[in-house]
Amino acid sequence: MKKDNCIFCKLANGDIPTNKVYEDEDFTAILDLGPATKGHTLILPKQHADCLFDLDEETAAKLTPLAKKLGKKLVDALHADGMNVIQNNGETAGQTVMHYHLHLIPRYKNDGQHLLWKPGKMSDEEAKEILDALT
Amino acid sequence: MKKDNCIFCKLANGDIPTNKVYEDEDFTAILDLGPATKGHTLILPKQHADCLFDLDEETAAKLTPLAKKLGKKLVDALHADGMNVIQNNGETAGQTVMHYHLHLIPRYKNDGQHLLWKPGKMSDEEAKEILDALT
Repeated sequence: MKKDNCIFCKLANGDIPTNKVYEDEDFTAILDLGPATKGHTLILPKQHADCLFDLDEETAAKLTPLAKKLGKKLVDALHADGMNVIQNNGETAGQTVMHYHLHLIPRYKNDGQHLLWKPGKMSDEEAKEILDALT
Repeated sequence: MKKDNCIFCKLANGDIPTNKVYEDEDFTAILDLGPATKGHTLILPKQHADCLFDLDEETAAKLTPLAKKLGKKLVDALHADGMNVIQNNGETAGQTVMHYHLHLIPRYKNDGQHLLWKPGKMSDEEAKEILDALT
């Protein structure tokens, strides 16, 4: 079920335009608006869950296989050297939007990032370039 | 299959003593020796896979449900305020042992950690206290 006034429910269900990387029956993956690195992607379940602990079992079972598939695609398409998979639960853990989301962060040699990333910026052109590289 | 000279294969399969949090047919979960916070846990598949991209689909499907189950248990047992789930692929991404491992990092208000954690220390006594709290 969607939750009223949840920005990630809206993004996952196409109610707001976004840079969509992937979509299936259960999930939408989008480019993060403040990317840690080039290709920083969020996997969003279409059904609302506040965090990991609220996910239903069926949705949970699909997440790591999807992260593997999309992550491989990102790393290959963007010629990345590695990838961090990060998921935060609760404000104390750095969760800022209370809708479960899985970060896929491609890593590049000397990208200046650690696990604590600094939000970057992405122009429309750069977004398009990445989306094009993934098709 | 186990891989020769892989320390996490040995830990996951009981060839080396460790602080085991959980075990089933496919996985062993252990306390990290250099914990970011109290209760920092690693989920290790018993079958060797270098990283996310090498996991077989069946193992991958079980990981997020297990992270949910164990994470909830850690947060409840240790009265944590949140949890980070982190998994690194490749040296550039900070992976130091080339056997897939999923970090469950309970978070506490003012624990001084960010996503880039500083390795801490854990005495045998503290390890026991945590294991006891989980039973």
